[in-house]
Parts: sequence; C-alpha cells; structure tokens
Amino acid sequence: MNEEEQLEFIYGKNAVIEALLAGTREFNKILISKNIHSDPKLNQIKELAQQKGIIFQFVPTEKFQQWAEYSHQGVVAQISPIKYTELEDFIAEKHENASLVILDGVEDSHNLGAIIRTCVCAGVSAIIIPSRRNVQINSIVEKTSAGAINHIPIIKVNSLVSAIQKLKNNDWWVIATEASAKDNYYDINYCDMNFALIMGAEHTGISKSLLKESDFQIKIPMLTDFNSLNVSNALSAIIFETVRQKQTGNK
Amino acid sequence: MNEEEQLEFIYGKNAVIEALLAGTREFNKILISKNIHSDPKLNQIKELAQQKGIIFQFVPTEKFQQWAEYSHQGVVAQISPIKYTELEDFIAEKHENASLVILDGVEDSHNLGAIIRTCVCAGVSAIIIPSRRNVQINSIVEKTSAGAINHIPIIKVNSLVSAIQKLKNNDWWVIATEASAKDNYYDINYCDMNFALIMGAEHTGISKSLLKESDFQIKIPMLTDFNSLNVSNALSAIIFETVRQKQTGNK
Repeated sequence: MNEEEQLEFIYGKNAVIEALLAGTREFNKILISKNIHSDPKLNQIKELAQQKGIIFQFVPTEKFQQWAEYSHQGVVAQISPIKYTELEDFIAEKHENASLVILDGVEDSHNLGAIIRTCVCAGVSAIIIPSRRNVQINSIVEKTSAGAINHIPIIKVNSLVSAIQKLKNNDWWVIATEASAKDNYYDINYCDMNFALIMGAEHTGISKSLLKESDFQIKIPMLTDFNSLNVSNALSAIIFETVRQKQTGNK
Repeated sequence: MNEEEQLEFIYGKNAVIEALLAGTREFNKILISKNIHSDPKLNQIKELAQQKGIIFQFVPTEKFQQWAEYSHQGVVAQISPIKYTELEDFIAEKHENASLVILDGVEDSHNLGAIIRTCVCAGVSAIIIPSRRNVQINSIVEKTSAGAINHIPIIKVNSLVSAIQKLKNNDWWVIATEASAKDNYYDINYCDMNFALIMGAEHTGISKSLLKESDFQIKIPMLTDFNSLNVSNALSAIIFETVRQKQTGNK
C-alpha cells in the first residue's frame, strides 16, 4: 500500500473516535466488521457518526484483510482527500445563470475524475454526490481529475431527493438526462436560469424518485443502434452545449 | 497473464513468420529484442513486415521478461483484436456529410475506448490512428469501448500527413483542434461537407505537420483558468455539436 493510499484511512476504534471528535478530517464512511462485538467504544463511534451524518457500514470481515498490517480492531474510516462543501452554504451564495451537476450512481473513479475535469473547464459551480451508491472522492478520483478537484466545490448529501427539493425551493431548475425523454439536450434554453443537471449511472440511469422531481428531461440523440455513451462523455456533450448557448446567446 | 491477454501475442520466429505469410491475423507491431543476432529467419520477418507495412521495433531485452514463460526467441508480435480497414477502401465508398476522427498521439487505452464509444454513438464513419506514437487497439481498448469497437471501421496508417493529403484530394475537409485557435468549435458549419476532425495528445496537442495540413483550426473555450479537458471529453463536446447542427439545421 503506497503513501497516497494510506492517507485515505484511519484505523482502529480510538483513532476513529478521536478523528470524529476533533472534526478536522472529512469522512467518506466508516467500515465496521460484521464479526466484532458491540462495546462502549463502538457504540460511541456509531453515535458520533449518526450525529454528524456520516455513513457507517457493516461489512464482511474479509474486507479487512487488505489492512491486516494495521491494528484496525475491525473499524476503518475512509477519509476524503478534500473538504466537502455544505449544500446550504452553496445555496446561500449569490448565483446567476449558474450550473451544477448532480451524480446519481456513478461507480467508476476514472469517470468521476473525468467528470470533475469537464465541470471545471466548463465553469460548473459545484458537483453534488450522494453518500451512498456512488463512488466517493478518493485518491484515484483526485489523480484522474488532474488537479481539477481543487477548483470546484464538491457537495456530499445523504439524500439527493431532499437536496433537489432544497434547490427547487431556491429557484434552481432541475434537468434530468433520461434515454426515453422527448426533448434533445439542445432543445432546452439554458441561458436565463440556475440549473442542476442530473447524470445517472451508466447502466441503470437516474432513479425514479429523482426523475419525478425534475423540471425537464432531456436525452442525447444516438445516431446508431449502439446506445451506450460513457457518462463523462454524455456530460461533456450536454454541458458544453450550455456553454455554447451562454457564449453565443443562441439556443 | 490471463487468456484475453494471451490472445494478443504471437511468440517466436517461426510462429511470427507463419502468421505473416498466412496474412489472416492483423498485426499491431512486431517487437524484436536488441540482444538477438541477425539470422535468415529474422531477416525474413523484417522483409515480410516491410512488404506489408507492419512496424517492427528493436526493444531492450527486459521488455521480454513478461513473456518469460513462452518460447519467444526474442521476437513477439502484438496482434490486434480487430481487422483494420484500409484508408483507400474507406475513401472509395460513397460519403455524404460524413465525419471521421483522426487521433494523433492518444496514449491511454481507456481514453481510446471512450473515444470509440462516443464516435459510434455520434454516427462517425471511421477512426484513423497512426501506427506509431498512439495507443493501438488492444484488449483494454476493446473492453473500455463496451463493444463499440465492432461497430466502426478503424483505419491504421503509417503516416497521418499522407492520410490527410489523400482525404483532402478526395474532397474531405480537415479540422484540427488547437488550444490557440481563433474559432470556437461551434463557429464552424459542419453540415454540408465530409470532414475529418483531428484530436491531439492531451499534453502536447497536434503535431505541427498536421496543423499545417488542416483547413480549419478550432478550440473549446475554457470558462476557467483550469485548462485541461480529457481528450475523450473534448471530442464528445465537439462531435455532438456536429450532431446538433446536422439534426437541427442550425449552425
């Protein structure tokens, strides 16, 4: 395990408790072995995690084999290389004709890195990821982003549905990409609004609960029967169309 | 080494000679150890490769350590999982408002796979890659392309300059992406021509000799100081703008 990877984890009950109490590290999640028994320290970890909205997962003990050289006691916290931004803080800022990207179920670190690069180049204001069922910010994402990760706020939320509702209550428009949509992505006028663009998992698309919340649904027209665009490439096509519209004033 | 990777190589002088004579396999290149002495079989390999326009490279003997379990005699041929298309055959077909993508120095297999997917989705007619200084079609490319590799002709040429000249002589227009270009990619009208779009290496861009041959030069406007779009994402932005123009009739 190289130094870069080591930086991502905190091992053992005491170390995790101290990091939770100090509040200076950004947790992606806490992994707890299914095989360890409850004790006061483990209970304290679960309570602190719940208070702070940090996910903890019970995982098979085999998962911990990769950390055999560390004194982990069946508890390992995965730490984010960046500090996340709070949705409320982001919304409270002044936004005009701004865009943000919401990811629902993107599983590949390389894709997330490429998405972050594309968003920074295209002037996207922030990226929202869910704390479950989506790749988290790790060192591969950081590396694949070619440094872009330091140029854009990343917002992590426990519920995408409630994040979207908050955005809508603050005059953001929500656009979902959906293969069966009637409108093509270039049929929408992106110029005079703050909008949030939801991109889904490559295989399953966007969850129904999010589609229901969206104001617009768009698709990318496929010119052949082969219908499988990589999610970062799909995002690039759409987000640079919004750039084109804003730069030229032409829908 | 797994089965998929094994399929990509032919080991040893006799096996390589037989494959060259049979002409049924598609060679990416032939690697020859710098430490082996010339002999009639090696000379025959070099002559056959030259006749067929197949690249052979003299490489340090350490390169062959990965194939220690095979009886390679210092000669290994890298085989393509697909059959390449000849540029002349492609040009001879009827093309109307068609597009093709030329890659100059794309080094990453994942990027090439994503590019192939994007091209197929956007209805690009073919992809041209050079036989040197560019990743070749291998099993990672095949996998990352999610099967798209089987839906588009790939043309491999020894000289991109001469390929571009042939295209121009056959009424194809050549467009190069270049960060310092005056025109943005959406300033060009892609509707009434056959065009070839050249995408360069991420760090070094397109070679000067190719820029000199191009009819148009375009850039993607960057909305922040962070100026580093992944090549497959850059291609996606541009190629779907050409789709938008063709579908809507609006430049």
